[in-house]
Amino acid sequence: MIRDFEVTVLGNTSSIPAHGRNHTSQVIRIGQDLVLLDCGEGTQIQLRRFKVKVSKISHIFISHLHGDHYLGLVGLLSSYNLSRRKSPLFLYGPPGLDDIITTHFRHSHTELSYSLHFTATDPSGMNQLVDHPNFKVFSFPLRHRQPTTGFLIREKQGYRNLIKEKLQKQKLPLEAIHSLRKGVDYVGADGSFYSVREYCYPAPPLRSYAYCSDTIYHPEIIQYFQNVDLLYHESTFVEADSARAAVTFHSTAKQAADIAMQSGAKKLLLGHFSSRYGNLEPLLEEAQSVFPESILSVEGDTYQI
Amino acid sequence: MIRDFEVTVLGNTSSIPAHGRNHTSQVIRIGQDLVLLDCGEGTQIQLRRFKVKVSKISHIFISHLHGDHYLGLVGLLSSYNLSRRKSPLFLYGPPGLDDIITTHFRHSHTELSYSLHFTATDPSGMNQLVDHPNFKVFSFPLRHRQPTTGFLIREKQGYRNLIKEKLQKQKLPLEAIHSLRKGVDYVGADGSFYSVREYCYPAPPLRSYAYCSDTIYHPEIIQYFQNVDLLYHESTFVEADSARAAVTFHSTAKQAADIAMQSGAKKLLLGHFSSRYGNLEPLLEEAQSVFPESILSVEGDTYQI
Repeated sequence: MIRDFEVTVLGNTSSIPAHGRNHTSQVIRIGQDLVLLDCGEGTQIQLRRFKVKVSKISHIFISHLHGDHYLGLVGLLSSYNLSRRKSPLFLYGPPGLDDIITTHFRHSHTELSYSLHFTATDPSGMNQLVDHPNFKVFSFPLRHRQPTTGFLIREKQGYRNLIKEKLQKQKLPLEAIHSLRKGVDYVGADGSFYSVREYCYPAPPLRSYAYCSDTIYHPEIIQYFQNVDLLYHESTFVEADSARAAVTFHSTAKQAADIAMQSGAKKLLLGHFSSRYGNLEPLLEEAQSVFPESILSVEGDTYQI
Repeated sequence: MIRDFEVTVLGNTSSIPAHGRNHTSQVIRIGQDLVLLDCGEGTQIQLRRFKVKVSKISHIFISHLHGDHYLGLVGLLSSYNLSRRKSPLFLYGPPGLDDIITTHFRHSHTELSYSLHFTATDPSGMNQLVDHPNFKVFSFPLRHRQPTTGFLIREKQGYRNLIKEKLQKQKLPLEAIHSLRKGVDYVGADGSFYSVREYCYPAPPLRSYAYCSDTIYHPEIIQYFQNVDLLYHESTFVEADSARAAVTFHSTAKQAADIAMQSGAKKLLLGHFSSRYGNLEPLLEEAQSVFPESILSVEGDTYQI
């Protein structure tokens, strides 16, 4: 059984909301877990609109402290409190995010019903933030006007699938089955030996997703996410506005495609579109001219990783 | 000419957003000016959705520091900065709101392109906050879990309309016309006398709007807004949930109607509906049973004052 691993886009617009598009946020489903990447204003409304099980979100990652990437966070944390959430929540983001949250809650006299664990990200290098039974999350540096990190989510090996026909022929001890499912060859006390290779189907390849929220075109970042199954890279501007992209430390769609190609990504998801573009097709065309496996992110759409 | 004086409802839901309804915010148009009352998460999105001239907002009033009444403020202030606003903005709200804003902007290294003037409200009594050529704004105490104020907006006398037929018969000096338009009788150096009463149409009555955001049923508040043209009073619950209203320091629709009736309001606008109600008709019926001139606020709708 292959576990779910998919991303739902909640917002795909940059800076000033326009054309009915919302600020950046994405929810990742990996097995039974939900993880949120960035949390622009209105994220809790988008989550409900797209019928995401909000209470299932266990980890939230904030890339940087520009309003369009984090201003929905205090509202979401407050709503968890109003619904008397009990399960802990793990939050990762730039230093200062904790001060912002505690300042809000101090003035609104809010005492949370759940434990909120904050870990500051460090944009000076790549760091492992989470080691969950099913996945790992890393932060890595991006280059923007603010200290900013991207995030890499790597699936971990799940239980192996046993070859039923083999098991029907032979009666394996229960300990052997447990061991094989975990991907470990079994040697019994009696000298019996069962190998994963013989009794299990080949493990499906482990998938990965890289998220590059806001960054100038900066090919050095590709070292952090080689050969991912899906790359999200911001693509704020068309090529004709590349000077504006450089000044604002953003990328063009073509530059995003270039990063996808150089890093060996299988697919590229575009987003963080400037409010100056009502029609997004030119961004897609420019990206596809470099990297054909480029797609535009659409709010509410889910992409398999 | 009667100046515009109207309220557009941007959000009418309480606490957790549901049923596609948004958090509290209202925009008041008075003549050429726009004034914002509360600013829940997503207000800047709602403002654009309903094609409000966002840049025209000159004054923002925050009733209290519960997230559903102010969490859209930093996003709106940030967007003004991104669009390089130059005109000053006047902000009124509870002490601590300034600390919240400066904490955000300190960590996001934001320096505003415009001047933001903050005045802390004082919920211990009624206070005049604004004396604009066209209107006055007062804060007054409400009774809620947080220090909370309501707001009263009173129109000021505009220019008087002259009776054209009278002017055609007689040639008045220009100074006399200026004086009469301001509502002041004119006595010339030569002893000539022109009275407002004779040369001007009667002044239209001055209108007023009272805004009671979040409050338990508390008849003492009616002293602050006698005989307003339009009263907004929160109506979070139906009568069957009145115990819940009391515990959470909110009101029922019937209690809101009772305040409208006792205060001599001409009309009552209901809002801040609990997410537990999909259908709002029962709230309206309960209010109208006490005060027939009650209406449900609808997001995007504009109500004349």
